[in-house]
Amino acid sequence: MARIVMKFGGTSVGDLDRIRNVAARVKREVEAGNQVAVVVSAMAGTTNQLVKWCQDLSPLHDAREYDVVVATGEQVTIGLVAIALQAIGVEARSWQGWQVPIVTDNAHGKARVESIEGAELIRRMEEGQVPVVAGFQGIETARNRVTTLGRGGSDLSAVALAAALKADRCDIYTDVDGVYTTDPRIVPRAKKLERISYEEMLELASVGAKVLQTRSVELAMKEGVRVQVLSSFEDKPGSLVVDEDEIMEKPIVSGIAYSRDEAKVTLRRLPDRPGVAARVFGPLSASNVNVDMIVQNIGADGSTDMTFTVGRADLPRAQDILNKAKEELGFEAMVADPEVAKISVVGIGMRTHAGVASTMFKALAEKGINIQVISTSEIKVSVLVASEYTELAVRALHTAYGLDA
Amino acid sequence: MARIVMKFGGTSVGDLDRIRNVAARVKREVEAGNQVAVVVSAMAGTTNQLVKWCQDLSPLHDAREYDVVVATGEQVTIGLVAIALQAIGVEARSWQGWQVPIVTDNAHGKARVESIEGAELIRRMEEGQVPVVAGFQGIETARNRVTTLGRGGSDLSAVALAAALKADRCDIYTDVDGVYTTDPRIVPRAKKLERISYEEMLELASVGAKVLQTRSVELAMKEGVRVQVLSSFEDKPGSLVVDEDEIMEKPIVSGIAYSRDEAKVTLRRLPDRPGVAARVFGPLSASNVNVDMIVQNIGADGSTDMTFTVGRADLPRAQDILNKAKEELGFEAMVADPEVAKISVVGIGMRTHAGVASTMFKALAEKGINIQVISTSEIKVSVLVASEYTELAVRALHTAYGLDA
Repeated sequence: MARIVMKFGGTSVGDLDRIRNVAARVKREVEAGNQVAVVVSAMAGTTNQLVKWCQDLSPLHDAREYDVVVATGEQVTIGLVAIALQAIGVEARSWQGWQVPIVTDNAHGKARVESIEGAELIRRMEEGQVPVVAGFQGIETARNRVTTLGRGGSDLSAVALAAALKADRCDIYTDVDGVYTTDPRIVPRAKKLERISYEEMLELASVGAKVLQTRSVELAMKEGVRVQVLSSFEDKPGSLVVDEDEIMEKPIVSGIAYSRDEAKVTLRRLPDRPGVAARVFGPLSASNVNVDMIVQNIGADGSTDMTFTVGRADLPRAQDILNKAKEELGFEAMVADPEVAKISVVGIGMRTHAGVASTMFKALAEKGINIQVISTSEIKVSVLVASEYTELAVRALHTAYGLDA
Repeated sequence: MARIVMKFGGTSVGDLDRIRNVAARVKREVEAGNQVAVVVSAMAGTTNQLVKWCQDLSPLHDAREYDVVVATGEQVTIGLVAIALQAIGVEARSWQGWQVPIVTDNAHGKARVESIEGAELIRRMEEGQVPVVAGFQGIETARNRVTTLGRGGSDLSAVALAAALKADRCDIYTDVDGVYTTDPRIVPRAKKLERISYEEMLELASVGAKVLQTRSVELAMKEGVRVQVLSSFEDKPGSLVVDEDEIMEKPIVSGIAYSRDEAKVTLRRLPDRPGVAARVFGPLSASNVNVDMIVQNIGADGSTDMTFTVGRADLPRAQDILNKAKEELGFEAMVADPEVAKISVVGIGMRTHAGVASTMFKALAEKGINIQVISTSEIKVSVLVASEYTELAVRALHTAYGLDA
């Protein structure tokens, strides 16, 4: 017997037939003798419609009222899933965020979970009832108002609930059947990973493998929640995201990720004075523009070229901020290029193996792909290339690291 | 300065433009120096969709889960209306049933309001904030679960809230601009009533003038809430539903109502024994079949013909119940006729005036309309006629009582 949190995303509960399918899956786990709690998202498309209404009424709407509106999506689903479960003989009851309660801070629209009261749910699970909990939503108890956790927040709800319920596993049902060595649409021979460490998953999630929301992986790592990613439409095991101690043979490279969501900015002939980086990045950070990769070439004449990447959506804002500071910063020209892609090689085995980066550079050079920027972390090497080379680069690296099945 | 509850139904908040229109109306009342609370229904069509999902998943669904699902309709509207108000500079905040709280019993799907905590809302109204309260929903506090008040329950929410807030008036905005002497679609010369008593409104509401939900009129009468019915699309005063003491000149007949929602049942040659009525109507009542008009003709041979009406939707159930009890009851035959209409003449002045019924019978006789059943109350005379005569009867009576404008 195990205690399992099963989380179903928007496409998995997109219509009544899919909701019946969800109920049937839950029933199987219950009949296998497990204690089960369910977390669900809004039916696909619902949240977008609700968000659009708020924005159409007022682009600068009150985030507290936005939360009241968008939290209804999950409320509909918990009721329907509970009814579908009861209809096939599974005892079930719906729980809204404020009923559990799932207590958050008061950052409406992107609240953080502070605590979840799990005792009553555990008691009911032990008696055989399935709690069906609304994902994405909580309550800030100072003012008793509904909060939401931000887009993709249902993954976070599921992981946080699994921690509160001391669950053996948190199963995230989605429209892909696991975590792959890379995007199977680019490399058809990409392999599904049986197990992957939190750290690797975090790097893969943040660089563009849109399987699990980044914050939910961070929370799973912090709380030691074992997460399984699997398909709600097929009946086979998925990928398990666990502590690296649970992974016997640590691969040097687990996966190749890519992201086209960044843009490159270069400041030419920036005076090379102490504190110049702070003066460039301070105003960007103050305006919530995240800077990712940074390189700086020191010139001979006391000036330098500085190149960095920002989120592509933030590029106009970043350009505006830097243009306004041009005189103060003293650079000669700013060149922006949104047509870039970040390609990353991720693996916990890198820590103990040399030569990972050079394999990467060699493989890309052989295909004639120019590397614009490089950045590395303990378990990741990322390069920036022209975005037209994305697929070619991913395929070359997948082969170079022996990941082709 | 007055304290006003403004209630807007589903068609009045049916899309974003209509929600903006609602906000503009509320703003006008606020700018006139009034304290305003708003009650809203779900956007038109929403509740039907939610109900259908529940029924499709399971015709015998858990009413507690049904309430979780359908209560979302009003939750969406309160958030959107609050945003629309804020967008035009009106301070506003949404309130769900559990937040107020609007405490109900635990009769899920048709709960009764037990109490409303009004102090916090009054405090905020006095500070200039407009509470936007979800109609139709409440909370049963023993289990902390969401309840709904049954279809049309938003009128009831508005009246109950007006009582709790000690409001001077409860304005019900709808798609008609007031209460008429009869249905203007049948009698184009029908007049809008400036004032009508609770008792008359109750008779009109329950016999088919679908302007205000019956329970909300009962509650308004009990709590002495002055209710105004008016159009959300036009800018003119509506009809005021008040205590009869507020009505100076009491009309003998205020209005003519009709209902096609009934069916007639006749039991032929029923043995005329003491207690026979109890044996006929006991089982019907036990199965929640409401019986309305009843007549009994006593025959010479110790048998009787008994005729009564039931809701048309209940007819098959009533026939089934009576057929099963045929032997015990001892009647010879049952004849059912769904093609009937109930025409009612309503007016508080009737109490002190004779001849109202005979005017009715004469007017109908002149048009050759046969009266099948008659029933009277203190302020109402109702007759049952073949349904094909409905319009003819309503027009004849409207003229006979001098109501034509």
